[in-house]
Amino acid sequence: MDKPRDKCGIMGVFGHPQAAELTYLGLYALQHRGQEAAGIVSSDGTALFTVRGQGLVADVFNDHSKFATLVGNRAIGHVRYSTAGGSIASNVQPIVVQTKDGPLAIAHNGNLVNARELRTELESEGAIFQTQSDTELIVHLIARSHAPTLTERVADALKRIRGAFSLIFLSKEEMIIARDPHGFRPLCLGGKGDAIVAASETCALDLIEASYVRDVEPGEIVCITASGVESHLYAAPDLHMCVFELIYFARPDSKVFGGSVDRTRRKLGKILAEEAPVDADIVISVPDSSNTSAIGYAQASGIKFEIGLIRNHYVGRTFINPSPFMRSFHSRIKYNPVEGVLKDRRVVLVEDSIVRGTTLKKLVGVLKKSGVKEIHIRVASPPVKWPCFYGMDFPTRKELIAAWNDPEQIREFLGVQSLRYLSEAGMLAATRDDPGKFCTACFTGNYQVPLAAEERQELVASGNEQWARSELERLLGSLE
Amino acid sequence: MDKPRDKCGIMGVFGHPQAAELTYLGLYALQHRGQEAAGIVSSDGTALFTVRGQGLVADVFNDHSKFATLVGNRAIGHVRYSTAGGSIASNVQPIVVQTKDGPLAIAHNGNLVNARELRTELESEGAIFQTQSDTELIVHLIARSHAPTLTERVADALKRIRGAFSLIFLSKEEMIIARDPHGFRPLCLGGKGDAIVAASETCALDLIEASYVRDVEPGEIVCITASGVESHLYAAPDLHMCVFELIYFARPDSKVFGGSVDRTRRKLGKILAEEAPVDADIVISVPDSSNTSAIGYAQASGIKFEIGLIRNHYVGRTFINPSPFMRSFHSRIKYNPVEGVLKDRRVVLVEDSIVRGTTLKKLVGVLKKSGVKEIHIRVASPPVKWPCFYGMDFPTRKELIAAWNDPEQIREFLGVQSLRYLSEAGMLAATRDDPGKFCTACFTGNYQVPLAAEERQELVASGNEQWARSELERLLGSLE
Amino acid sequence: MDKPRDKCGIMGVFGHPQAAELTYLGLYALQHRGQEAAGIVSSDGTALFTVRGQGLVADVFNDHSKFATLVGNRAIGHVRYSTAGGSIASNVQPIVVQTKDGPLAIAHNGNLVNARELRTELESEGAIFQTQSDTELIVHLIARSHAPTLTERVADALKRIRGAFSLIFLSKEEMIIARDPHGFRPLCLGGKGDAIVAASETCALDLIEASYVRDVEPGEIVCITASGVESHLYAAPDLHMCVFELIYFARPDSKVFGGSVDRTRRKLGKILAEEAPVDADIVISVPDSSNTSAIGYAQASGIKFEIGLIRNHYVGRTFINPSPFMRSFHSRIKYNPVEGVLKDRRVVLVEDSIVRGTTLKKLVGVLKKSGVKEIHIRVASPPVKWPCFYGMDFPTRKELIAAWNDPEQIREFLGVQSLRYLSEAGMLAATRDDPGKFCTACFTGNYQVPLAAEERQELVASGNEQWARSELERLLGSLE
Amino acid sequence: MDKPRDKCGIMGVFGHPQAAELTYLGLYALQHRGQEAAGIVSSDGTALFTVRGQGLVADVFNDHSKFATLVGNRAIGHVRYSTAGGSIASNVQPIVVQTKDGPLAIAHNGNLVNARELRTELESEGAIFQTQSDTELIVHLIARSHAPTLTERVADALKRIRGAFSLIFLSKEEMIIARDPHGFRPLCLGGKGDAIVAASETCALDLIEASYVRDVEPGEIVCITASGVESHLYAAPDLHMCVFELIYFARPDSKVFGGSVDRTRRKLGKILAEEAPVDADIVISVPDSSNTSAIGYAQASGIKFEIGLIRNHYVGRTFINPSPFMRSFHSRIKYNPVEGVLKDRRVVLVEDSIVRGTTLKKLVGVLKKSGVKEIHIRVASPPVKWPCFYGMDFPTRKELIAAWNDPEQIREFLGVQSLRYLSEAGMLAATRDDPGKFCTACFTGNYQVPLAAEERQELVASGNEQWARSELERLLGSLE
Repeated sequence: MDKPRDKCGIMGVFGHPQAAELTYLGLYALQHRGQEAAGIVSSDGTALFTVRGQGLVADVFNDHSKFATLVGNRAIGHVRYSTAGGSIASNVQPIVVQTKDGPLAIAHNGNLVNARELRTELESEGAIFQTQSDTELIVHLIARSHAPTLTERVADALKRIRGAFSLIFLSKEEMIIARDPHGFRPLCLGGKGDAIVAASETCALDLIEASYVRDVEPGEIVCITASGVESHLYAAPDLHMCVFELIYFARPDSKVFGGSVDRTRRKLGKILAEEAPVDADIVISVPDSSNTSAIGYAQASGIKFEIGLIRNHYVGRTFINPSPFMRSFHSRIKYNPVEGVLKDRRVVLVEDSIVRGTTLKKLVGVLKKSGVKEIHIRVASPPVKWPCFYGMDFPTRKELIAAWNDPEQIREFLGVQSLRYLSEAGMLAATRDDPGKFCTACFTGNYQVPLAAEERQELVASGNEQWARSELERLLGSLE
Repeated sequence: MDKPRDKCGIMGVFGHPQAAELTYLGLYALQHRGQEAAGIVSSDGTALFTVRGQGLVADVFNDHSKFATLVGNRAIGHVRYSTAGGSIASNVQPIVVQTKDGPLAIAHNGNLVNARELRTELESEGAIFQTQSDTELIVHLIARSHAPTLTERVADALKRIRGAFSLIFLSKEEMIIARDPHGFRPLCLGGKGDAIVAASETCALDLIEASYVRDVEPGEIVCITASGVESHLYAAPDLHMCVFELIYFARPDSKVFGGSVDRTRRKLGKILAEEAPVDADIVISVPDSSNTSAIGYAQASGIKFEIGLIRNHYVGRTFINPSPFMRSFHSRIKYNPVEGVLKDRRVVLVEDSIVRGTTLKKLVGVLKKSGVKEIHIRVASPPVKWPCFYGMDFPTRKELIAAWNDPEQIREFLGVQSLRYLSEAGMLAATRDDPGKFCTACFTGNYQVPLAAEERQELVASGNEQWARSELERLLGSLE
Repeated sequence: MDKPRDKCGIMGVFGHPQAAELTYLGLYALQHRGQEAAGIVSSDGTALFTVRGQGLVADVFNDHSKFATLVGNRAIGHVRYSTAGGSIASNVQPIVVQTKDGPLAIAHNGNLVNARELRTELESEGAIFQTQSDTELIVHLIARSHAPTLTERVADALKRIRGAFSLIFLSKEEMIIARDPHGFRPLCLGGKGDAIVAASETCALDLIEASYVRDVEPGEIVCITASGVESHLYAAPDLHMCVFELIYFARPDSKVFGGSVDRTRRKLGKILAEEAPVDADIVISVPDSSNTSAIGYAQASGIKFEIGLIRNHYVGRTFINPSPFMRSFHSRIKYNPVEGVLKDRRVVLVEDSIVRGTTLKKLVGVLKKSGVKEIHIRVASPPVKWPCFYGMDFPTRKELIAAWNDPEQIREFLGVQSLRYLSEAGMLAATRDDPGKFCTACFTGNYQVPLAAEERQELVASGNEQWARSELERLLGSLE
Repeated sequence: MDKPRDKCGIMGVFGHPQAAELTYLGLYALQHRGQEAAGIVSSDGTALFTVRGQGLVADVFNDHSKFATLVGNRAIGHVRYSTAGGSIASNVQPIVVQTKDGPLAIAHNGNLVNARELRTELESEGAIFQTQSDTELIVHLIARSHAPTLTERVADALKRIRGAFSLIFLSKEEMIIARDPHGFRPLCLGGKGDAIVAASETCALDLIEASYVRDVEPGEIVCITASGVESHLYAAPDLHMCVFELIYFARPDSKVFGGSVDRTRRKLGKILAEEAPVDADIVISVPDSSNTSAIGYAQASGIKFEIGLIRNHYVGRTFINPSPFMRSFHSRIKYNPVEGVLKDRRVVLVEDSIVRGTTLKKLVGVLKKSGVKEIHIRVASPPVKWPCFYGMDFPTRKELIAAWNDPEQIREFLGVQSLRYLSEAGMLAATRDDPGKFCTACFTGNYQVPLAAEERQELVASGNEQWARSELERLLGSLE
């Protein structure tokens, strides 16, 4: 996979007789945020009920009978990418644990930067961990708090963790929703009749015909019980919203961070057309993630938009252990060119971002075989130079093509007539929001939430030192 | 499902060391032609080897180890929709049978109109059938022929069957490829190095980087052995190619019936724009099947093309026995509207065809909730009034909305500002071919290959007699 | 496995609302007759319903929901050993086929000696076979008969086949039960209220609390419909009942061939004690198949019966592809010696039969490690020298230790103090029936039902010619 | 199930290249100690590797490929009954946890009486539990110890727990074996070449051809590393060995508590014959658990031993959710009577123990239908009146037939001619050991290791107060 990947999507429903089914449908809408495992935990006020498994949501819940066990009018759910290595199965969420105050389930989207240090501390006190996940840390911190209410115990725990986290908890009586003070990952609240809904993106609300109410605030903790909703800020907001959610992760039909993803993407395309015009016959996209920015580019440039690549609907279903022979057809499996559109044309190929560049290179090869005359790549984001420690599943720095190559080198590597990236200023202009509120670390290396020692070491270790020393020194200073 | 469905896709590879893997990849490209079962049979010259199962190709071959049993340098494959009722599992193709001349596998795309009469005849002679499928009939006819070569025995059998059939056979030594004299379903030949490839559509050749050579001719039988290729016509061609392949079934990146599907579809959209213009703000498609005709419409009309509906990539994965509650979200699961694009706009919604109209009505409801100002539906084909007996999986006549309603009634049913269909002449003009060569029975009721008695009865029985008597009488005359 | 194995067990129930469940229970009781596949077909008078699979009965029907599909008040069932090689799955019975007269299911216990010749004949007439099984031949013969009733068509078919067959057929309206004229395999009739039951052994009747009525007669065909039972002889009886059913196959709690298996086995042990006495401390059996004859030996000899070997209840559950290391513990997995019983004792080990002798040799090794002083093997049947062509799954002649070795050589091979077989006369005396009615071919080579040419060739080819020529010549004469 | 059940069997191998395979074989021999789940954890000195699942050992390890992941020359394994209710899957052992000192696996046979009180204490300190099992408590206690070596940390933990426990631990470098000071459950040590083996019963050593060395001592902790074996007593022995292991649980071919089970059982039968003679024709057993005591009875009484009941080898394989109709045949499924043996006979039926009596009553019904003349039940243990809190899976007191009925009432309930139990003195005489060393609480109510408060309450609550008050008062005094 040649894109960063979001690590998770989360969903919660409180107060609806079909809570588990609505959670399922919400996860279905959030499937793009995690395709390797899924789970739902429900509660009827007296106990928690769990169904989890590996695979797509529709694979895990492949028979409606699975809902028979998920009783109760509240439920939370999770879709995830498995982390590399480790005991994959035991990392499937929501995690459910037994505490002195009863069972507690947790669904987490994000990544902690002080996980290792907290784990060492807890283990030295005799804590036992079942998994390698950051998420389990949070429940240990909650279990160790002696505050009188679950909300306060959760707040105690959240004050000790650092990094990106959008969280939904479910106890027998309460659903608790929280977001880190930086607002790295999206999380919104909605309503469906009397029921309250929380979801990573509004597309999950849309599918279940719930109305969007507002985003969960950065630093906010919301506690829902049968007797009502209470909210307070457990920490002062300090916004660093992930700009990559707008560029690539979130669905275009979602609102995230309070704005329409679709509009931002069209704007990215339009500004890109202004910053990097070209004389060409047609604009095509890499479907489906670049569709909207490609249409923006076409509209602003006046060049005709065409569908030049057909995306196989069944991709994602590939098997375990393909042979090298099968693997060699991989780029063909995903996209097939439309020769009638491409032959003898000068083509603008709009791509949302370039990470390692290897898939794009194969795609260029596919286009060339279809007889295109010229290929002009326009990227609707700046060069990706730095890994993410705030909840994206990212290649190491060594693998990022723009970390070690300037755009001209990348153009040459890809073998195209021209290549232009959107500027950082152009990107932020498209967000129509205060640019200071966004985390752009993957483009700039400016990690505004302090990293752990081992993460800083990883950055240094993964560097091509000849090229990167000066830049690293400058940045590492700011990380202390 | 509110679209007709193609019943099958077929694929064959002769003379390549990875024949089974190439067949798998070809089926992957043909997955849109059948999503409920898949199978591959290979041969190493001494025996046949089979792997079949229910589900998507990637589900049936979910571990590469399955290829370990598919040895040999030739293979044929099949994807299919299961027919309603009956023993589903036993209908999975390719069928493999033991005959006096050794094992024989067969992959079939199409439908026979004289199946019942042939079956009765064979059963009265003591033949035993394992399945309800037309395909098994063909092998019985072959087994009963005493002609000296397999090709001649196949030709004997084909002369007795009537209807639509694109076929690939595999014996231990030979691959035989044949197409009915009417050319109802597409079937093409390609080459990959020394290997010969046959496939329902050229997109399967593209994926495995095989070159397109030519279509199998209507009435042609091609026999491939280690010593070479032989071809002859076993029947005189009498062309009635399925125009619905161009409108909806085939992938836009395929060439079928010798022409580019993409071009035809764009042309359908352009002619539709000329025939049925409208004053509106944006053109949107029902993704992905109407994308190309919508772009054609936008280009010819000068109205801006936008992406107004997001198609969930994971659709198709729904579970067994959904509850009525879950079912009520069905249209939402597939498409979500992009509110930023639609709100307060006058929208042209381009759809490739309308069959029962029920899904489209739900989609209209979804659009309205997004705040569209006006909806103008433009359909890139004429009204569908008649069922298909030539290989499409079609609703009965009773369910076809245009069989019993004129466009104004349909517009009212859908609740939109305007509704216009493409004319029959416009449709045929877009094919850029001799219009007489196409079967348009589903639009016109003009069944050019004689139907069986029970099929004619079905037509009569399914009619709304008040409305349809006169038309039926006119047509039934021509069916005798 | 170092024992011959029966190839199948069959069961049928007509006229009970829980027909399929009773059939399941009957197969459970008949599990010892076939452990690799199981299936049930039921009928409600309008259609047949099938559930089949590989594994034990309880594995195939591992969820009670499987019975939801097996509707109707009549059902037939089958347990089987898969034959070596071939498409195992497609050989699972009951077989169900479509004929001109509707669907027909068949469950078969036995083996035909003229299968190959009939198959060649049918194939040359265009018949297509799905499997390699003898059973499929029978349905082809039925389908080709033009007799007016199913019973007559079945009789037509049975007259053409030669060998061992106990059969139960199920059509939508009728259950037909038949047995070959020689009565090789057992088949009995019983009643449970108004329902009629057929089963390979009476232990299946016992489990479902049905009463035993009588055996199906050799050469008899019984037709059961809603309006009653009809029976007639389609061939004159010529009895050759399999004596090995009494010695080893059938359960001791069954009646077969009209007599109690338990009594015959105790008698075998008693006669063995008279024919081959020995001075020893204890008598032990190879559990559980030799338990009854060992008790008979102990009672007649006055030597104390003890349990010297504990049989692991979970044997039979071993996994696919054991490593050679695991395999080396195989005999230990099945039996563990009871040291307190065996140490320093002179032991009579009663075994029902010796086929290849390899497992018995390992068992002797196990006993010796437990410190036995002497081992005296007493075999409750004569030396097994010839393979079976009448429905036992038997090693080839080459593998039969007694075919090429006299008892003294076998004693030496096993490394025991003494070894004595029961005499042929003693065996027949224990049956308390007319000795002429039994098939003893596996002991005597006297194949009273003519073998096929290839079976005769197999006998010759498998022979150690130096030793066997004279005996073969004598016998082959009688086979013509 | 109408017998108490042992909760678990455990196995460990240190220093053999096929450690996991030997552990598998050992578990196979110990299968009777737990049939609902199985697992193995291995170590290669650098990491732990785990395979666990529900079902029989041979089901969990149903393909030899599962051993590919179980690398290393040491392994521990576990078979278990699932406890009633709760999350069954998460209770499968060995449990593996991450501690500050690395991963630790634990296999436990037994039951703690102070579990609830320890759990409450740990939870109040913030400990999080994954399961409801006692076993998890032990690892929490170990993780909280700050002693310098694992052995010392284990000893710290063991000093805090009370009840029955035979334990095997595996860390990356060490295998630690321990047994409670009372020696409730058996645990022995053996050798196979240089490898050291531990197992619940010696039959596991026999199967892998390991030699028996000695029992693990009550209160002993044994630590095995690559550099050798160290042993010490962490607590003073105070023997209360479970007498039910000798009567029913352990396999007759095992040595447990230093003596042969087979001999004890034969002795039980002989003493029973002396204490409770009867004039009868034959002695039969309830196979297989009563076989040895029945033979003892027959030998001492001089009455002929016969096999009157055939046990179905395939029992245990029954399906999920049997219908009430199927359930009604349950006793028939397990045992079938041998009519030839039973009819018109006066039968002594030897049974090892009676718990609820319901299954035995059905068995009596089965015997009666076979035409027995008289039934005399002889039970090779005293009346079972009290539940077990030391590691047996036992019915509640309410369900124990002898808790509320005297032998004459039970005889009447069962409907037999006579019923006699073995005396407590007779039982202890058969053990040939110091009677004071045994726990006989299930017969006497004399719980020598103090119970928890809730267990005492359970005893009171489950009582039939009219009958039991006086006895309870007497006993509850001694429990304080």
